[in-house]
Amino acid sequence: MTKAQLTNNIRTKKSFLCVGLDPDIHKIPAHLLDFEDPIFEFCKQIIEQTSDLAIAYKPNLAFFECLGPKGWYTLEKIVNLIPDHCFTIADAKRGDIGNTSLMYAKAFFEYFRFDAITVAPYMGRDSIEPFLSYDGKWVIVLGLTSNSGSNDFEMLQTSEGRLYEKVIKSVASWGTPENTMFVVGATHPSMIEGIRQIAPEHFFLVPGIGAQGGDLDATCKSGINKDVGLLINNSRNIIYASNGLHFAEAAREACLNMKSQMEPYLSTGI
Amino acid sequence: MTKAQLTNNIRTKKSFLCVGLDPDIHKIPAHLLDFEDPIFEFCKQIIEQTSDLAIAYKPNLAFFECLGPKGWYTLEKIVNLIPDHCFTIADAKRGDIGNTSLMYAKAFFEYFRFDAITVAPYMGRDSIEPFLSYDGKWVIVLGLTSNSGSNDFEMLQTSEGRLYEKVIKSVASWGTPENTMFVVGATHPSMIEGIRQIAPEHFFLVPGIGAQGGDLDATCKSGINKDVGLLINNSRNIIYASNGLHFAEAAREACLNMKSQMEPYLSTGI
Repeated sequence: MTKAQLTNNIRTKKSFLCVGLDPDIHKIPAHLLDFEDPIFEFCKQIIEQTSDLAIAYKPNLAFFECLGPKGWYTLEKIVNLIPDHCFTIADAKRGDIGNTSLMYAKAFFEYFRFDAITVAPYMGRDSIEPFLSYDGKWVIVLGLTSNSGSNDFEMLQTSEGRLYEKVIKSVASWGTPENTMFVVGATHPSMIEGIRQIAPEHFFLVPGIGAQGGDLDATCKSGINKDVGLLINNSRNIIYASNGLHFAEAAREACLNMKSQMEPYLSTGI
Repeated sequence: MTKAQLTNNIRTKKSFLCVGLDPDIHKIPAHLLDFEDPIFEFCKQIIEQTSDLAIAYKPNLAFFECLGPKGWYTLEKIVNLIPDHCFTIADAKRGDIGNTSLMYAKAFFEYFRFDAITVAPYMGRDSIEPFLSYDGKWVIVLGLTSNSGSNDFEMLQTSEGRLYEKVIKSVASWGTPENTMFVVGATHPSMIEGIRQIAPEHFFLVPGIGAQGGDLDATCKSGINKDVGLLINNSRNIIYASNGLHFAEAAREACLNMKSQMEPYLSTGI
């Protein structure tokens, strides 16, 4: 999916909500355990109820990998079920030496046909570049994450600014706003404005709204750009909105609620 | 496997060689393509021919993931085939917020029963800690990697030393030498001595000997400690020593050659 298509989809749906799929067998509604593949059934019903409201889905690989090879089959079925008008993100946090990153690119872009993959930048340029050579595909590089551990290394003062600033500057120079996004956590609202100055045209994938306490209003005010430029992720507040029989309808309600909070930022002529 | 068991195995086998399993369907001997699962057959024959010489095996997840869910079944069969006296490393470069890293720990420590997993440190403490809570399991954190991209961020000068030094110091304080190792590339021989001073008792997993040009002698002289403290990885020079019918015997020869180069460092009373 190109950047123009993504922005166009956002304007059509009036939503820049990314639904994070972190399906935990111990948290999904009990009645689903009677299905042959409870995790698939859980995600399927949520996707069916929310795909007109979500601009993107972000399966979190860890929640599939903990089930072993079976989990990867479930992931494959889920990705194939997501409609084409939704952007798909493999939340995989990969990254390795060049020839290995190329194999990860094959896995997520060719085999699973995801639109995007999240990548950790620690190993530098040759760990990121293999993901940049696919037309219409995206690498989403960790910039400033939403967790408490972001204070340990990402915030370090280096000879070229804070580490996350240096990472975003460097990666922005390796790719383009047409194939690169950054993870920018909503738990650091005061820094989003500075990051937007470093990367004025890039999309940011923003975790941390909801369960982690990030603020949607502050994020939008600091982060939105002419192409919208934000994908706001929410996982737990949507997929676990209810653990009853009508969990998927409850997920839809949660998406509608997020959408209504987002719409004003789209209607101000941005 | 405990540190004492690992060191004991090294002294018994007179080897601290880790065989990297990066099986590429386009590089394995052509006659294996007639097997139902060529990648499995390739790794199986190599393991059978080398397990008395290798102290560890390190499957590189990317080379299995690029085959989709089938690749994960192949990985499972291979891990189950590795004898208990060999240390097993999931070269996965994972790392995410705490609740997600916990799911990765479940995947690699509980489902696959690997002894160790490689982890990228960018996201900080809560991304690493979930891997530290398993008795007899190990997290191997990226310190200074062997690739050219290690110059981009890892070598940055920060307010607390170079980034890789700060990472190793911090992670060493979160875990212990009984559950934490570091990736230290052999392509930076002049830095290994300094890293050994920061982490005198930790094992280092050392990539970069062989195809990437690292020097075994310089690495051993700077890196060996009283428990040996080194796992020297070699992948391509061993598994692709030949692509003929007798590739597994050629892999054995390559291991014997590595072992004969390593033995002198073990016999000097360390």
